[in-house]
Amino acid sequence: MSYHKPEAKTVQDLKDLAQKLRIHSINATQASKSGHPTSCASIAEIMSVLFFQQLRLNLKHPRDPSSDRFILSKGHAAPILYAAWAEAGLFPIADLNNLRKIDSDLEGHPTPRLNFIDVGTGSLGQGVAVGAGMAYVGKNFDKADYRTYVVVGDGESAEGSIWESLHFAGHYKLDNLCVIFDVNRLGQSEATSLQHKLDVYRDRLEAFGFNAVVVDGHDVEELSKAFHCAAITKNKPTAIIAKTFKGRDFPNIEDLDNWHGKPLGDKAAEVVKHLEGLIVNKNVKLTPKPVPKTGAAPDVDINNIKLSSPPAYKLGDSIATRLAYGTALAKIGQNNLRVVALDGDTKNSTFSDKLKNLDPQRYIECFIAEQNLVGVAVGAACRRRTVAFVSTFATFFTRAFDQIRMGAISQTNVNFVGSHCGCSIGEDGPSQMGLEDIAMFRTIPGSTIFYPSDAVSTERAVELAANTKGVCFIRTSRPNTCVIYDNEEPFTIGRGKVVRQKSSDEVLLIGAGITLYECLAAADQLEKNCITVRVIDPFTVKPLDAELIIEHGKQCGGRVVVVEDHYQQGGLGEAVLSALAGERNFVVKHLYVPTVPRSGPPSVLIDMFGISARHVVNAVNEILKD
Amino acid sequence: MSYHKPEAKTVQDLKDLAQKLRIHSINATQASKSGHPTSCASIAEIMSVLFFQQLRLNLKHPRDPSSDRFILSKGHAAPILYAAWAEAGLFPIADLNNLRKIDSDLEGHPTPRLNFIDVGTGSLGQGVAVGAGMAYVGKNFDKADYRTYVVVGDGESAEGSIWESLHFAGHYKLDNLCVIFDVNRLGQSEATSLQHKLDVYRDRLEAFGFNAVVVDGHDVEELSKAFHCAAITKNKPTAIIAKTFKGRDFPNIEDLDNWHGKPLGDKAAEVVKHLEGLIVNKNVKLTPKPVPKTGAAPDVDINNIKLSSPPAYKLGDSIATRLAYGTALAKIGQNNLRVVALDGDTKNSTFSDKLKNLDPQRYIECFIAEQNLVGVAVGAACRRRTVAFVSTFATFFTRAFDQIRMGAISQTNVNFVGSHCGCSIGEDGPSQMGLEDIAMFRTIPGSTIFYPSDAVSTERAVELAANTKGVCFIRTSRPNTCVIYDNEEPFTIGRGKVVRQKSSDEVLLIGAGITLYECLAAADQLEKNCITVRVIDPFTVKPLDAELIIEHGKQCGGRVVVVEDHYQQGGLGEAVLSALAGERNFVVKHLYVPTVPRSGPPSVLIDMFGISARHVVNAVNEILKD
Repeated sequence: MSYHKPEAKTVQDLKDLAQKLRIHSINATQASKSGHPTSCASIAEIMSVLFFQQLRLNLKHPRDPSSDRFILSKGHAAPILYAAWAEAGLFPIADLNNLRKIDSDLEGHPTPRLNFIDVGTGSLGQGVAVGAGMAYVGKNFDKADYRTYVVVGDGESAEGSIWESLHFAGHYKLDNLCVIFDVNRLGQSEATSLQHKLDVYRDRLEAFGFNAVVVDGHDVEELSKAFHCAAITKNKPTAIIAKTFKGRDFPNIEDLDNWHGKPLGDKAAEVVKHLEGLIVNKNVKLTPKPVPKTGAAPDVDINNIKLSSPPAYKLGDSIATRLAYGTALAKIGQNNLRVVALDGDTKNSTFSDKLKNLDPQRYIECFIAEQNLVGVAVGAACRRRTVAFVSTFATFFTRAFDQIRMGAISQTNVNFVGSHCGCSIGEDGPSQMGLEDIAMFRTIPGSTIFYPSDAVSTERAVELAANTKGVCFIRTSRPNTCVIYDNEEPFTIGRGKVVRQKSSDEVLLIGAGITLYECLAAADQLEKNCITVRVIDPFTVKPLDAELIIEHGKQCGGRVVVVEDHYQQGGLGEAVLSALAGERNFVVKHLYVPTVPRSGPPSVLIDMFGISARHVVNAVNEILKD
Repeated sequence: MSYHKPEAKTVQDLKDLAQKLRIHSINATQASKSGHPTSCASIAEIMSVLFFQQLRLNLKHPRDPSSDRFILSKGHAAPILYAAWAEAGLFPIADLNNLRKIDSDLEGHPTPRLNFIDVGTGSLGQGVAVGAGMAYVGKNFDKADYRTYVVVGDGESAEGSIWESLHFAGHYKLDNLCVIFDVNRLGQSEATSLQHKLDVYRDRLEAFGFNAVVVDGHDVEELSKAFHCAAITKNKPTAIIAKTFKGRDFPNIEDLDNWHGKPLGDKAAEVVKHLEGLIVNKNVKLTPKPVPKTGAAPDVDINNIKLSSPPAYKLGDSIATRLAYGTALAKIGQNNLRVVALDGDTKNSTFSDKLKNLDPQRYIECFIAEQNLVGVAVGAACRRRTVAFVSTFATFFTRAFDQIRMGAISQTNVNFVGSHCGCSIGEDGPSQMGLEDIAMFRTIPGSTIFYPSDAVSTERAVELAANTKGVCFIRTSRPNTCVIYDNEEPFTIGRGKVVRQKSSDEVLLIGAGITLYECLAAADQLEKNCITVRVIDPFTVKPLDAELIIEHGKQCGGRVVVVEDHYQQGGLGEAVLSALAGERNFVVKHLYVPTVPRSGPPSVLIDMFGISARHVVNAVNEILKD
């Protein structure tokens, strides 16, 4: 595949189209009275060459699994992305003037509410991870010809997440990935730290395993050649380092400070006139390349995923839920070849290695880089190519909270599995304890949170998560817990289980994971003193089975004790309080980890930090005085 | 300062001491039956040379502001760090056997419960940011001779946060910082991605602005020379890339898989015997260098920080709380030269640029790299050297949740200021909206959360935060809000304000930021229909003024409506529910942003997402039916 210089007419057409994209970006942001026209201007030639010379697109079905992927990591340049798709013919140019309007999906930053957007961007530094996930799937699972392009701003290239992803892409030799750095020199509030030091970018990218090509980002011929170089380079991803200028071709604005995120206002007309003067053929019309028939992505069915065999435990067996997670993951992996696991070098603790043992090809080691781990999973799950399970210690997902948050905006279906929750992990100490993970995942719009307490319910949680839309989180525990459910027990999202009840019950106890067992132990002790209590296992914390809790809470005199191995805020306890907010005549005692724990044996810690059976007994005695 | 090769005896002593440190690490982890002896073994020579040849320490006062700083970023190697301090004479060697015991502060990973630890480590990839913050302060504020050393594991060097920090250190030419990479080839569950490719590390570090020196990490002479090279290298930080072996000198364990995070068990005795055989002088005793008299850090007083002048607004003025933050920051900066501001290229949005305008030296631009931003602030605040205010958009703090979480373990006093909260930011869309920030900061143990509603209370929040221990978070809003407090109004943490009341009030409304004004508007409308309601401004969400809410809630028939520009989970609403958990006879309606918002005008969005005055009126009418 040797390089053919584009014809002079093509070059001029691409230049003209770039100017049209600039004009659209100005007009749209004038209409919306907000937005980032200067950040659009620096990538006008990049977008023109990409959309009208490089990308192979299906305008009838923008999320065609076989079409090239494009991610605008610098999401604030959304207007020019919308303009490119409009110029390509996906929707009328006139719609661009609806930018940022309440009834338009042409939002300030791109979201998948638009059918040509795979993931939301706008929180910077996340596009490369997603692109790397797509490229990994394209190369290793789809084995298809589609390529993935990511446009990154130079400002956002300070984000460490980018370097995690570049390392990942280099390590896995993702030669179907091309990352374009728009080095326009200016950030929001001042110049970037590297300004136009293109050699520094090149040295860094080469050291991170990339084929790095420096170009004049406003020269369509140089860009064209660089993309060709990217396409023929094997065993390495390519970075195109484009020297550009913010507000390019905007007289008295180009390359100047204080023009970030501002429409041009009363300068707009003059700038548009200038740009129009630069256009040779006002009627220029170009069409993106179609998706070739060869090298297509295979059909994939990720519906109705089932465990290959039902849970097979004995009541009373002692098994950690984290181990049951691994078992279940391998079981659904046996039944569906698109189930994949990703982990950050904790696979022998989270037990995601059970899928690796089954099929090494379907395990993606992301090493110790949780932001990229999550981003790659989001990319891998795009266009319904895979069912992705991401695992690490529950608390290390805090490292990727922003990526998970953006995952919800991206409408991702990624499943997160966090092990080592709570102070019950013991001696490793507070840095390793997940004590805020439920709070974090509860805030994710549309999320489902499983907190299974035994191996049977864990296996069912995994099966349910695989088939559930939106972000799912499964919280697993380090210590062994007793199997309390029959292998045939059915589990449903949003339905809890009453695990102990008598008609004489005076207090309702709610626990999950290790605290469910503390509740049961407390119930035993209390019964010796002729106090009977009911115990509920919520199974899912979100949605929480409010109906069940209200019904049984009322039967227990409106007395509820919630116990959790988590901080006070945003966890199971406050979920219960939210469920009861509309009910008078309830009183809730909430036992939780009140402060930073420390190293020590699990049983000592759960007692020291107030969530052991002894404390549950005390809370019941207290609440009965109410 | 030319290099003098250490004498043969010194070299042998350092070698012997390294072996002693290995033995202590084995014995301690044998006693605790958990821990990471092989991760200790790879850095034994590094620790020996650092502690007994390089670091200038004050054993009587380990946090002497003039002494060298040492951070073990790979916190799981804690036993050898403890062993080094014990060998240095800080505490008895015998105490090492209390490792990980419930009544010992020698925890599984280091925390500042120990007087020789500045920050908690154990969540990987955070040490360089903290070290860079210390070095920045040493070079630019203290202008002192102390140096900062950080030991980083090769596994954790995959964390992007590390590369953010390396870039920061290179950019600011922190030649008083030395980062030692312990390249021991093995991660937890498999080999690292780069294994022993030392040239790749060197190329990357050089490209990131470091003086990069590759050494045999088990050769004390090479280490000694490298540290000298670091000390004399100007205008560049130094990275020492140490080729090491995990489990070094542990026969049949060294450089082998499956030995991460495990005590040696029944192999321990044999290994210790082998190590003892390698020691020439069993009675070797070395002492760390003392802190020199010259180049000391200045005395600093960061107590009792005050606004240089009281708030100066007119009732009814319309001023964004984010702007009032900038004003207050400059005012406390005027009064105390150790008030510093850090931001991630959003200073003209958060208004932290007001301190930069006052004194450019006290503003630290961290560019778009929020994890490093937070880590640098934590480092800058260590040993009470500065009062650090860190600002960015509220939602972008999610990027650094793990760093903030570790900040609490580190007992940091950093103040976080998050602007652009909620859907009321408008057209920029959901990626820019802080809708989970209160939930996040509420989970931080010991945190204080201010959510001021007007300019006067914002200025007082800043003043209070500057003097408050632990993590403080101030949530500021983008839109202008009305000044409702007199300039003389006193504010106290944990005390809310009743901003509207009549004896006939039937419902208690609680709002903060823009929703306080929606509550007040709703109250006006309701009054036209002869319904009067009380309105509370909580001022701090944590601690929340439970007493005030209960008292006034009871006076309003136990009917409470909480309205917030935040998701349902973990925010003001659930804080109120937690405050009322122990009270029967309350009913709470909670208005919140129920799903991912979109782009649009602020007033349209707050109505569309259910938190406008109209919805408050409806909620009041509904709750009155109860």
